[in-house]
Amino acid sequence: MTAIYPGSFDPVTYGHLDIIKRASQKFDKIIVTVLNNPSKKALFDVKERVELLEIATKDLDNVIIDSYTGLLIDYAKEKDISIFIKGLRAVSDFEYEFQMALTNTLLDEDIETFFLMTSNKYSFVSSSVVKEVAKFNGDISKLVPDIVEKAINQKMKGE
Amino acid sequence: MTAIYPGSFDPVTYGHLDIIKRASQKFDKIIVTVLNNPSKKALFDVKERVELLEIATKDLDNVIIDSYTGLLIDYAKEKDISIFIKGLRAVSDFEYEFQMALTNTLLDEDIETFFLMTSNKYSFVSSSVVKEVAKFNGDISKLVPDIVEKAINQKMKGE
Amino acid sequence: MTAIYPGSFDPVTYGHLDIIKRASQKFDKIIVTVLNNPSKKALFDVKERVELLEIATKDLDNVIIDSYTGLLIDYAKEKDISIFIKGLRAVSDFEYEFQMALTNTLLDEDIETFFLMTSNKYSFVSSSVVKEVAKFNGDISKLVPDIVEKAINQKMKGE
Amino acid sequence: MTAIYPGSFDPVTYGHLDIIKRASQKFDKIIVTVLNNPSKKALFDVKERVELLEIATKDLDNVIIDSYTGLLIDYAKEKDISIFIKGLRAVSDFEYEFQMALTNTLLDEDIETFFLMTSNKYSFVSSSVVKEVAKFNGDISKLVPDIVEKAINQKMKGE
Amino acid sequence: MTAIYPGSFDPVTYGHLDIIKRASQKFDKIIVTVLNNPSKKALFDVKERVELLEIATKDLDNVIIDSYTGLLIDYAKEKDISIFIKGLRAVSDFEYEFQMALTNTLLDEDIETFFLMTSNKYSFVSSSVVKEVAKFNGDISKLVPDIVEKAINQKMKGE
Amino acid sequence: MTAIYPGSFDPVTYGHLDIIKRASQKFDKIIVTVLNNPSKKALFDVKERVELLEIATKDLDNVIIDSYTGLLIDYAKEKDISIFIKGLRAVSDFEYEFQMALTNTLLDEDIETFFLMTSNKYSFVSSSVVKEVAKFNGDISKLVPDIVEKAINQKMKGE
Repeated sequence: MTAIYPGSFDPVTYGHLDIIKRASQKFDKIIVTVLNNPSKKALFDVKERVELLEIATKDLDNVIIDSYTGLLIDYAKEKDISIFIKGLRAVSDFEYEFQMALTNTLLDEDIETFFLMTSNKYSFVSSSVVKEVAKFNGDISKLVPDIVEKAINQKMKGE
Repeated sequence: MTAIYPGSFDPVTYGHLDIIKRASQKFDKIIVTVLNNPSKKALFDVKERVELLEIATKDLDNVIIDSYTGLLIDYAKEKDISIFIKGLRAVSDFEYEFQMALTNTLLDEDIETFFLMTSNKYSFVSSSVVKEVAKFNGDISKLVPDIVEKAINQKMKGE
Repeated sequence: MTAIYPGSFDPVTYGHLDIIKRASQKFDKIIVTVLNNPSKKALFDVKERVELLEIATKDLDNVIIDSYTGLLIDYAKEKDISIFIKGLRAVSDFEYEFQMALTNTLLDEDIETFFLMTSNKYSFVSSSVVKEVAKFNGDISKLVPDIVEKAINQKMKGE
Repeated sequence: MTAIYPGSFDPVTYGHLDIIKRASQKFDKIIVTVLNNPSKKALFDVKERVELLEIATKDLDNVIIDSYTGLLIDYAKEKDISIFIKGLRAVSDFEYEFQMALTNTLLDEDIETFFLMTSNKYSFVSSSVVKEVAKFNGDISKLVPDIVEKAINQKMKGE
Repeated sequence: MTAIYPGSFDPVTYGHLDIIKRASQKFDKIIVTVLNNPSKKALFDVKERVELLEIATKDLDNVIIDSYTGLLIDYAKEKDISIFIKGLRAVSDFEYEFQMALTNTLLDEDIETFFLMTSNKYSFVSSSVVKEVAKFNGDISKLVPDIVEKAINQKMKGE
Repeated sequence: MTAIYPGSFDPVTYGHLDIIKRASQKFDKIIVTVLNNPSKKALFDVKERVELLEIATKDLDNVIIDSYTGLLIDYAKEKDISIFIKGLRAVSDFEYEFQMALTNTLLDEDIETFFLMTSNKYSFVSSSVVKEVAKFNGDISKLVPDIVEKAINQKMKGE
């Protein structure tokens, strides 16, 4: 059984890695795929986000990193996969994801979304919090892997 | 991949059947298991609930009905299964299930709970609403299968 | 246009009266109806609850007090009224009332529920809080009308 | 009894039409009014949104389409109407609408907002989801009327 | 500055101890007080709950354990303390505590409740979950201190 | 005991003043500090916001107005203060503030956030609602002090 774990991953955090690792223990294969959304301003471009994910998941043999443009259900159909994985952290996540899951099922009734609760250890971690803290030189070493921390600091300096 | 779908099922509703059917299309096998909780007053006893589930799922070849007493994680360990399936309908479900999923993972870190959103068509159906409506002779034919409707009406008369 | 405002009213609070008064200014007639639920333990019996409501709403000419047993939609059909009024105070109210409104519409598609937000002045008042505070001789004069305060104190003494 | 149903309607969806139709069965007249908010980027201009609403509601005799600029309560006062209709889909709607209803009542205490629960069939439909799906050529025929689908596709091509 | 931390503590968990410890670092003195509510069935009686709290907090010099009967605001007035401490874990806590805080302020406007967020490490721990897990011989050593674990096991055996 | 009450205060409302006044009655000193966030468009600049706060709190002797740039925890460390005060109005506040409080504690474990419930009288007031209403010449005299009302009207005219 293969599942797709879609997201922005700008950048990947320990919260995402928690979901990826746990999902990889239950599924035969996990495809982590980065949404290429040109209309949304990002800190890292898609190529960089894919690279950071590849390094951060290199010990997980059944995890593949990819990216996509357009509708997620079209990407899934092309790959012939009908299971999505999403992490839930809080009530606000729940409502948005509920809407997206129902919309996806409406567009393609074969699609199923499995939700995993983010470990409470990482329930408050998000890519935006990481970037907000890093902007003011706060310590993000407990929120993201080393390689991501370095990449963010370089980006911040370069701006 | 096999998953356990635990619950009270007192009685099974179209909401439960929606989850069972969708899960059975993605997993190799689904074990629907009825919690035997002697300290909670029920309309149907465990044997009756198992029978209603068996009839209602008879067209789904990879669905097995069972029951358990005690801790769900002990039942799962005995069966050597580490995936639970739960349906989410609303924010209040979310909070309770979040707590239970984190507790189960604490007790056995190999356990993973996958949440499915209940189809919006059944998002308001629950066993308690069904019993409440049936108590006053309301029409429950859109909430539960025929066999369950008949069983409820017999119970209500018999009381 | 006539609407039904159903509830337990055990006893009526300033929160209920806020909804009744505001609804009575928009509708031609409001029928406030007390649910007679023998399986739920109450402080006041239905007759007493109706009397307290009658005294508390005596200045509102287009408000009628009544009671009912069984399913609310059957009561409504008998009265040939298809609009229910409900007050919303908080997110938890919202979820429960959402479920009930959808169930009522399923049972009779002509039924419509209009929700009014309880004035923020009374958003924390409920019959159970009133009884809880009164049990320990707390001051409830800002939560219920005088007549209700007296009735509660008499009940509490009599127990 | 006449009520105002205000909104952005950029564009009208089956969710909005569900509320309009149900409200039109209870009220003598419903004025659906489009907010003209120049500071918010829209897909359709106000004139187009009014036209789409007019076509989509042409079978409902007691529904009138209009538009307004400025504060909703000023528009209502000018029309001498004191009832607003709003649809609630989810907890997040609830909180925002609660705040707006209390603010409107503070600005004009005669104003009353009646909330209707969106039918669960359409609880996940919103104008933004429709536009998001259409942007990537997804099928929106179950979310909006034909005329709106055509108008969106033309807009998207023209951009 | 002295604060009261009220609760049922049936029994004290690591979640409670997290709040007690953190509050004791900011306040001069914390009075942890056990509600004596004869109408609610408890596993431990008030005397036992006080003892378990005393042992579990013996290293915190400015923490005092007490118990009370009746209204919390009367207890506070008698002690001449006007600050309550409460832990928040989730949205459902929030709504209930919001209602209680507003009620307490209505009854005595000098009373102020300070809410602390429970550490995410303990956000899913509650006395009822602990008792539920212990009932079926589940491992509760990560949820409560040793002394509490022993006391629960003895109780369970004795029943 | 001294506490920091941080915020945007663009501009200060009666909701903020309710929290400031109540906190000032319990703490020895309250430092109200305005976040200087150059990347967020504001109606008033930081100097103006500080001035409005100073006038609005001039009767509260133990309240000091200040401003800061960067991370709040760095500001707090510099001042040697480890308590933050935040007002909670609604569930959506709760989730965001929960995330921020846990992040702050992660960055500096000595930091503690105390949450106060906003009085229900002001639970729907926010700086954005005030600006939205003022934009269309709505009456904001019940939402903000006179001096703030005048300042907003001048700004709006000047634009």
